[in-house]
Amino acid sequence: MDILIKGTIVPVTGPEDVIRDGVVAVRDGEIVYVGRLDGLNDFSADKIFGGAETAVLPGLVNAHTHAAMTLFRSYADDLPLMKWLEEAIWPLENRLKAADVYWGTLLACVEMLLGGTTTFADMYFFMNEVAAAVQESGMRASLSRGLIGYGPNAGEALAESREFILEWHGKAGGRVSCMLGPHAPYTCPPEYLKKVAETAAELGVGVHIHVAETRQETAEIRKQHGCSPVELLAGCGLLDVQVLAAHCVHVSPGDIEILAKKGTAVAHNPESNMKLASGIAPVTDLLGAGVTVGLGTDGAASNNNLDMLEEMRSAALLQKVAREDSMALPAYTALEMATIGGARALGLGQVIGTIETGKRADLVLVDLRKPHFYPPHDVVAHIVYAARAGDVHTVLVDGKVVVDAGQVLTVNVETVLDNVRESARGLVGKPKERSLL
Amino acid sequence: MDILIKGTIVPVTGPEDVIRDGVVAVRDGEIVYVGRLDGLNDFSADKIFGGAETAVLPGLVNAHTHAAMTLFRSYADDLPLMKWLEEAIWPLENRLKAADVYWGTLLACVEMLLGGTTTFADMYFFMNEVAAAVQESGMRASLSRGLIGYGPNAGEALAESREFILEWHGKAGGRVSCMLGPHAPYTCPPEYLKKVAETAAELGVGVHIHVAETRQETAEIRKQHGCSPVELLAGCGLLDVQVLAAHCVHVSPGDIEILAKKGTAVAHNPESNMKLASGIAPVTDLLGAGVTVGLGTDGAASNNNLDMLEEMRSAALLQKVAREDSMALPAYTALEMATIGGARALGLGQVIGTIETGKRADLVLVDLRKPHFYPPHDVVAHIVYAARAGDVHTVLVDGKVVVDAGQVLTVNVETVLDNVRESARGLVGKPKERSLL
Repeated sequence: MDILIKGTIVPVTGPEDVIRDGVVAVRDGEIVYVGRLDGLNDFSADKIFGGAETAVLPGLVNAHTHAAMTLFRSYADDLPLMKWLEEAIWPLENRLKAADVYWGTLLACVEMLLGGTTTFADMYFFMNEVAAAVQESGMRASLSRGLIGYGPNAGEALAESREFILEWHGKAGGRVSCMLGPHAPYTCPPEYLKKVAETAAELGVGVHIHVAETRQETAEIRKQHGCSPVELLAGCGLLDVQVLAAHCVHVSPGDIEILAKKGTAVAHNPESNMKLASGIAPVTDLLGAGVTVGLGTDGAASNNNLDMLEEMRSAALLQKVAREDSMALPAYTALEMATIGGARALGLGQVIGTIETGKRADLVLVDLRKPHFYPPHDVVAHIVYAARAGDVHTVLVDGKVVVDAGQVLTVNVETVLDNVRESARGLVGKPKERSLL
Repeated sequence: MDILIKGTIVPVTGPEDVIRDGVVAVRDGEIVYVGRLDGLNDFSADKIFGGAETAVLPGLVNAHTHAAMTLFRSYADDLPLMKWLEEAIWPLENRLKAADVYWGTLLACVEMLLGGTTTFADMYFFMNEVAAAVQESGMRASLSRGLIGYGPNAGEALAESREFILEWHGKAGGRVSCMLGPHAPYTCPPEYLKKVAETAAELGVGVHIHVAETRQETAEIRKQHGCSPVELLAGCGLLDVQVLAAHCVHVSPGDIEILAKKGTAVAHNPESNMKLASGIAPVTDLLGAGVTVGLGTDGAASNNNLDMLEEMRSAALLQKVAREDSMALPAYTALEMATIGGARALGLGQVIGTIETGKRADLVLVDLRKPHFYPPHDVVAHIVYAARAGDVHTVLVDGKVVVDAGQVLTVNVETVLDNVRESARGLVGKPKERSLL
């Protein structure tokens, strides 16, 4: 199948790299040409997408989420973190069945695809169902079973992770990859983290973990271990494997140096950090130190959407106001974080994240003929500062068209919505006053 | 014309006030009934809008913008404030012609209507063109000609303002009201502000002004006048008339006390304050002191969209992270600010801002049958934390349907886009690399 994409190409290979009236040629899922139409030879397209007022971007990468938590979207908000977890989220999670996770994940996939996200890094449980949903949706994902290292199930969970990785890593035509998912330094003891690092090295996979999300966590780790969460992980040898560290809100200059030296990637989640009042990650400093930074939405219970276009904007705006510097985190840097930054953070930097020949065709077409994109002074600024999920017209993953004209082609969305509603009804008790369940 | 709106009614009369399977009856532009269908008598609808999975909200109020600045959307970003103003924005503004302002404002109206904003407070110039665009679009607006009190045109500008107010205040079927628009304490000397206050009292209109937007402004005023911007305005007698004070980022507890005592309303512009790195307004403190707070986008050059649904979310998230308190600015409070708060701030609290009998029918219908609104645990949290402009299905202003099925009915959008592009081409010199002009 030969597909031709027309539009203004934003390849994310450099701040000024924009090809007006450009084309991307896709053959068997691979990008075989990027440039002006008159430079394309020996290509007869079976299908053509895009047009004059279309922006073509690399698929967005959501570098940290818990997809099935869409089930808890708007279930509990405006609460202190521990009350939110202990009284709202955890009791519901305890009731989750495999089918709930399947439908919740499929809902997340549909939402993400409609918003131009083609790849995500997930940490949750019932991961076979998560992988099945990813496979069905046509998305690309890096999946990790969440591991709690304290408690009786720690060993079993690691064994399950191993099985899951052996079954799914590299499957769904290469769209599914796996990581190990130790939850956090405060839920996994050092010996456990060592075991995780050994297992990761043995299986040749990365590690996805929450790090330094809250001030309390950092204080607690210091009290218990006399060091920072990052230092603790480095001490366990965990950072000697490829690590995707979510949050890193409360990291010191010394921590940042360690992250840079170890090649640890960070997933920045500005809206979740804002909503849960966790704090503001020092993204400018991380980038300045050479740390790879991706962008994530976190779960829908703390966001409450999975809109990566919006997340780019929030990342840029938050960093500017935090540093009182309007030049901090420019539009193009936010776009990089949401594409090639996330791709690298997931170990997929050679496969996706930019529009370059040889990469897999994960592409997003945005319709620019809209009032909020006029006049078209700057396509990158428009995408970062003005766009939203609903502006996405067409999405390709691995060269396959999965969204067109704003409609998902791989999954019956109505069925997903109905099943999610049923799952939610089964999970909650008496609905609240403002619930429409 | 009798119109019946069906859906989940969110009247914004109290945090838990949600009418599931409710109706709003509209007769001759006025809301005549809000409640369950079986309580509605003697009403035969000419038209019916909404349905089972529709949320019905009061029209959103954008309490501070410069509508025609859509012309500069994404023209200059990621720059320090003074460089942005002096090298990018002001030179373009100097070239603006009346027709540019007309098309730029009409574009803003179209964008706002499509996002559920039915009323806005504007400060700009060529105000007759602004008023004409408002009239044509079907929106409601409070308009003020921006006044620079230093310089040779100060007196003339005030005289023009008077003419504009006499011509337009209460016109367009009552949809257009006017204010005086002294730009800011640092661009208007105290004697000028006194004159403005006297003129406002004489004409029976309010005053729209920028106050304490940046740290530099506050320092400058203190250096020149030995007091804060708020104290300066109070000293001039300006706060004795009805004042809409935009920004109030850098206000002290003493300033807040003055604002509360004088009944001065504040327009909070979180995204603009973030993008320009101005700082974080103490909204929770302002509300706690009893100050009326509305929400605004500011101009599209510093935002870069006019999406009030997104602005609500940014307001809530920003305040939470700034105070490290996840309970700061809950969803419902953000919704209040964007509706009745803004209405009160514009002096329209008796006319619009809630869904109550006797008020004018400014109504927004949001389609909830979408992945990012599932499952429907909490309609208010969904609107504030998950919704975006593109979710708006139908909009009524003053009982007239101005948007339906996501299409503007009052204005030819294609014509607006084409004219805006022409205006932008005329304004800028050589387009930048990433421009699609």
